[in-house]
Formats: sequence, structure tokens, C-alpha cells
Amino acid sequence: MTETTEDRFLDGALKLLQPAKGYRAGADPVFLAAATDAKPDQRVLELGCGVGVALFCLMHRVPDLEVVGVERNPELADLARLNAKAGNFAAEIITADLSELPVNLKARSFDQVIANPPFFDRTRGTSAAETSREGGRGEDTPLATWIDVAVRRLAPGGTLTLIQRTERLQSILSLFDERLGSIRITPLSSREGRPSQNAIVAAKKGGRASLVLEAPLVLHDGARHDGDRDSYSRQAKKILRDGQSLSDVRLVHR
Amino acid sequence: MTETTEDRFLDGALKLLQPAKGYRAGADPVFLAAATDAKPDQRVLELGCGVGVALFCLMHRVPDLEVVGVERNPELADLARLNAKAGNFAAEIITADLSELPVNLKARSFDQVIANPPFFDRTRGTSAAETSREGGRGEDTPLATWIDVAVRRLAPGGTLTLIQRTERLQSILSLFDERLGSIRITPLSSREGRPSQNAIVAAKKGGRASLVLEAPLVLHDGARHDGDRDSYSRQAKKILRDGQSLSDVRLVHR
Repeated sequence: MTETTEDRFLDGALKLLQPAKGYRAGADPVFLAAATDAKPDQRVLELGCGVGVALFCLMHRVPDLEVVGVERNPELADLARLNAKAGNFAAEIITADLSELPVNLKARSFDQVIANPPFFDRTRGTSAAETSREGGRGEDTPLATWIDVAVRRLAPGGTLTLIQRTERLQSILSLFDERLGSIRITPLSSREGRPSQNAIVAAKKGGRASLVLEAPLVLHDGARHDGDRDSYSRQAKKILRDGQSLSDVRLVHR
Repeated sequence: MTETTEDRFLDGALKLLQPAKGYRAGADPVFLAAATDAKPDQRVLELGCGVGVALFCLMHRVPDLEVVGVERNPELADLARLNAKAGNFAAEIITADLSELPVNLKARSFDQVIANPPFFDRTRGTSAAETSREGGRGEDTPLATWIDVAVRRLAPGGTLTLIQRTERLQSILSLFDERLGSIRITPLSSREGRPSQNAIVAAKKGGRASLVLEAPLVLHDGARHDGDRDSYSRQAKKILRDGQSLSDVRLVHR
């Protein structure tokens, strides 16, 4: 049995098990859930759901979702099932490689498909942690496959929402073919005035609206990290602590 | 002879003639010049230089540049030559379609290639002003051609700098092929917290660095337009009035 820790998300509203070593979910899946504009009764699919942080954050905010998570690492998938049970979340967790989805899942379509594809910088060599993450969460699956599988599972008008390293923006936008439109990019930035490290990229299947590049969501106050872990900005706290949606946080800010 | 006006740029340091009607240069070419990281003695080419606003702003800031502007509209090219003469700028203005550059220009390479390709939203129909701009500044030339011609004229390690509608970001990044890297995107945003309307996109020929998405340059202070034309932000004024480079403005801001 994998050694696990129980970690608090959304100010302790969610307590989720995850492996003590290897890839560990941090703020990214919480931001992914916040950026997913799901409505009650919609169908949601996460590719590479890990232990389910994004899915359970989303289900915590939006009631009555029909949720499927796909995870190829059996230990992570088992932990996701345990987390679903403990939190009383009716999510279906399927152990499968996203490039080989079960036939009955291939017959289904979803209003929302979400993903946090792992990122491995091949130019910077391989560390043990990166290898573990790679094995566990499908880094050897090309980004093109993540996007293609996601689009195939989207219903017409459905939305794909990704969180990804900003440096991968060219690859992502180049892989968004004519099936996707109405692209909306929300950069995440650690500090005011700094370049963005991560970005949320959303697009609609069959969307026709022009691309929108939103103002960055700034995660920390102040000019530099002061060693105090509680330096999150007011906007970041509304997402990470209160579980609010990105669009609600943005509306208030404007 | 075209009816012209003499317009002030950089707080009156430059007075440039441009046609009274049709496409008229505003702040965009001034931002393009500010974003162009040219050093003294470098060779600079602008594709579609119009009456030369970007080139002359750049020459005003950086001494001893070897500058070529290409403009296919003969009246705009003539005005660019008059502007060069009046401002004592040693710029060579060539009347040519960028897809049919003269043979001797095709034999030359440049450290900097800059462009502000015209944008016509074909989904929104044709207005008279747009038609004029289209005729004058090469909207019927595909963006792919602008980028391809620019890359061909770049020396190895040279930089392409574009200013463009942000909604065109997917097209631009998709057209940046393996010849270009070290992409740097600077969004321009009218107000704090608002989506970006225009973006400066720079890339190096043969560059290998990761893509960087900078924080937006916010052009106006306050939450909304108050009818006062002089609402430019401190950063925007340093560029539009003082003729500073974008990187200098950014350094001070950080």
C-alpha cells in the first residue's frame, strides 16, 4: 500500500488522501476547478484526475454534477475512489490510459472536459521526482493526445478547460484545431508585474468567438516572497480557501 | 496629392505627415518602436511601414541604426520619405509589396524586423475606413506571408517584433514555426483587470528559450474612460511622451 497523507483543501472543507511521495497536488487543480464554468446537472470528465482534487473541488462548488475521472495509475485511481467515498461525492473513477479509453466511455459525451496535463521539461534532464510524476500521470502521452481525446469527448458547445505551464502556450494554441474556438486564456502570475508561470486555457467545441486574453490572476501580494506562507492575494484566497469560481472572483474585482 | 495632417508623436519631438483620411497611425506604432530592443548600429527592417511612425520613433531613441522601410502604397511611402527628410532620419523607404520584395533587398538581412500588420475582422463586414486601410496597408496579404517574409529577412539570432490584435494570438503563435523561438508576449490592456486588446509578440530566429508571457502594460489609469484624453498611465506616458523603451519602463516598474 502506498504511504499517504491527508491534505486539506478549500480551508479544510475537503480532506483528501494523496501519496506522500511523487507528484502531489497543490494549488493548480484548485484553480482548474475554479475556472471550470460548470452548471448543475452538467456532465464533467477529467482526464488524468490523479486523486481527484480538481473534481472534488468542483463538486463541492457545483451541485448535481455527473462526474467521471480517468486515471491510469491504479494507486492514484484507488485513492480517488477512497476520497470520493469519504467525501460522499458520487464520482465515477475509471482506471485507464487516456489514449485507450474503455469503449463505453467513448460512447459518452460531456459538457465539460478538464485536465492538468503533467509537464516535463525535457531540456532540463530527469530528476527522481519528475520520473515519478511522469510514470504516474502520463507525461509520456503527447499533449496532442490529451487535447484530441478531450475534444472527442466534448459535446457540441462543451468546454475544454486546461491548466498548464504558460511556456507551453504556443503548443496548446497550435494544437487547438478548427474544432475549438472561443478561446479564453487566464494567466496566473505569482506577483503583480511579473511574467505568468501557469495559465488556464479554455475553449468551446464549435465556438466562434474571438480569443480573449484576460488580465492575470495575481496569486501573492507584495513584491517578493517574505517566507510567510499566508501571503496569498485576496483573489487567490477566494478561490483556494472559499472555493469560489474564477468568474465570480473576477466579477467582484471589476 | 493626398490631403495630409501633421501629427505630433513623442510629446512633439516628432512631427509626422500622414493622410487626413483612411488608416491613421495612433499609439500602436509608438508601442511597437518601444518594444523593439534595437542596439546602435543594428540593421532594422519594417514591413508595411506606412508613413514611418514606428521607424522614426525607434531612430529617435536609438542612434546609428541602418533602417529600411517597405511600404506598398506609393502615397504613404512618399510621406514616409518626406517625414524622413524633415526629421533628418537616414531611412531608406522602398515602395514594394512585401510578397514581392526587390532582389537586392532579398539579399540583405536584418537584426530587427518589425511590423504592425493591418487587421480586418472579416466576420464583422466591411466599413469604408476598413476598406481604405485594407487597400493601403496590405490586409489582403495573409498573416502567414508577413511572418514568413520577416523570418527570411532576419539574420540568425535576429528578432521579429509584431504588434497585433490580441485576438489574433492563436494565428500568430501557430504561424511561428521552428525557425522562431524565445517568444515573448507583452499584452497591452486599456485598464487594470481588463482583457488585453493588443499584444506585442517578439521572437528570435533560432531562439531556444521558453515562451514568456509578460504582465500586461496597462495604458490608462482608473476603472473607466472619463472623457479626459490625458488619462494615460505613468508607464504608457513614458513610452508615448518620453520615447522610452518598453524594457526600461518595465525595469523601473519591478
